[in-house]
Amino acid sequence: MNQGLHEAAISAALTGELTETGHRLLARVYFADTDFTGVVYHARYLEFLERGRSDFLRLSGVHHSELADGSHGEKLAWVVRRMEIEFRRPARVDDIVAVETRVEDVSGARVFMDQELRHGEELLVSARVEAAIIGPSGKPRRMPAHWKNAFLRRSE
Amino acid sequence: MNQGLHEAAISAALTGELTETGHRLLARVYFADTDFTGVVYHARYLEFLERGRSDFLRLSGVHHSELADGSHGEKLAWVVRRMEIEFRRPARVDDIVAVETRVEDVSGARVFMDQELRHGEELLVSARVEAAIIGPSGKPRRMPAHWKNAFLRRSE
Amino acid sequence: MNQGLHEAAISAALTGELTETGHRLLARVYFADTDFTGVVYHARYLEFLERGRSDFLRLSGVHHSELADGSHGEKLAWVVRRMEIEFRRPARVDDIVAVETRVEDVSGARVFMDQELRHGEELLVSARVEAAIIGPSGKPRRMPAHWKNAFLRRSE
Amino acid sequence: MNQGLHEAAISAALTGELTETGHRLLARVYFADTDFTGVVYHARYLEFLERGRSDFLRLSGVHHSELADGSHGEKLAWVVRRMEIEFRRPARVDDIVAVETRVEDVSGARVFMDQELRHGEELLVSARVEAAIIGPSGKPRRMPAHWKNAFLRRSE
Repeated sequence: MNQGLHEAAISAALTGELTETGHRLLARVYFADTDFTGVVYHARYLEFLERGRSDFLRLSGVHHSELADGSHGEKLAWVVRRMEIEFRRPARVDDIVAVETRVEDVSGARVFMDQELRHGEELLVSARVEAAIIGPSGKPRRMPAHWKNAFLRRSE
Repeated sequence: MNQGLHEAAISAALTGELTETGHRLLARVYFADTDFTGVVYHARYLEFLERGRSDFLRLSGVHHSELADGSHGEKLAWVVRRMEIEFRRPARVDDIVAVETRVEDVSGARVFMDQELRHGEELLVSARVEAAIIGPSGKPRRMPAHWKNAFLRRSE
Repeated sequence: MNQGLHEAAISAALTGELTETGHRLLARVYFADTDFTGVVYHARYLEFLERGRSDFLRLSGVHHSELADGSHGEKLAWVVRRMEIEFRRPARVDDIVAVETRVEDVSGARVFMDQELRHGEELLVSARVEAAIIGPSGKPRRMPAHWKNAFLRRSE
Repeated sequence: MNQGLHEAAISAALTGELTETGHRLLARVYFADTDFTGVVYHARYLEFLERGRSDFLRLSGVHHSELADGSHGEKLAWVVRRMEIEFRRPARVDDIVAVETRVEDVSGARVFMDQELRHGEELLVSARVEAAIIGPSGKPRRMPAHWKNAFLRRSE
């Protein structure tokens, strides 16, 4: 495999890949993710889910650093408003897990996503996430139309 | 105040207090809890909630280290099965937040808790948490009757 | 114990106390601090140390939120430049640990602190920390004279 | 690029690669790694360093889950004994950083590693790490000879 293809594959691995229905990212479980019960600490699953959402946004052309630096007219931030999360089976150190993200709906200032964390075929965690874009005062901002299109294109 | 009372009072402050309806713990927000958007990172709120549940259990006579060392006949662990969480307003570095925990129901192997995170009178985060006790194989274990009583006593 | 003493103890527990040589803060070890080896994850000790430094600064009149909001003429931040840290013995879930912080020297833009984490009399972690105040561009800023005095007063 | 090469490249990206002098892993900075000062929180750099060491061990045939399950005769764990760490320049959200790890020396029960975190050519963090293998009682265990060889082979 030549160097260019190699770099492309590494980049794909670091950012995940757009799929027919959304986005898929592989990630490793390390020491830092676990707790003394021997498995991943429940709040750390939310970090894996955040990586999936961030990389889905990245591949859809939305960059957190751009939002923060005011390139969109004012300082914007992406925030989670609400989550329903089921912790079904535990992940363990050394596991490679897949984070699967799908946009279910975009409604005004809100985006609804479904996410799953899998180890092989096994479903570990499922989550329904409501996120929003907010301005400097914390007030919600309407999603730009081309983002809405980018998200939904994959989820029809 | 003599030194003994002082130490006792500090210990009480570290573990929070049983209230008429459950438990209340004060905690400080530090650098580590925040992210680059300037406020607390969403998954870190779950750590504050865990502290509230852990200290409520502690004051009800349930110790994580005892569960783990097999004092209850086998190695047990307390796990979160499901959460619904609303992130209403952000907490910021230096804030002192109150974590309020109430047991809503104990049903066989499952405990349902309602939790709130407040800054002064302001409600920041509310969560409905379903937790369970599991054995070494991951199978749920029925809650001992005296724990059930300890939890529910406060919530009637 | 009357209400005033109670409030004083809660405040002491949340912010720690100035001592003859510096500052002392008690803190609890929770699930989130541990890893699958059964003890505290090494990088989480740095969070306990940060809490000790932050509360020492707080009681010396330095607030992170003030630094960040520009009250000192420009947006300032407190950063760690260098650490030497020895992990001697582990802390475990449910432990109450003491974080002891002492300023060894203040030199221009840099502060050198010695920190220890103890469980009872047992020394768990010791660290030598070099910190600095930086401006918006990342350039170091000279420590205001009254902070220097506040830090060193306790360490002579 | 065919599917086999693609999978191989993803695996390389997730686990990093052995280099002439040690190991190199690429990793993304996410929300969870940052704090309110706008850059990566100092203790989170230690998590990036841990990933580098863990994957270097993995590619050298040492698996944390095997250590923990007693495959080596008793329950073993890999622990960090001492770190000297310099935080030179900050990493920011969305950055891809390289974690470079080199074994400097193996002496009885201790391994000395040099690690660097880079963003492009820029050196962000450098660390000297002393690690050890310990048994269930916390006592150090001599490094198996074939591990010693695996580590040092790359560092001569």
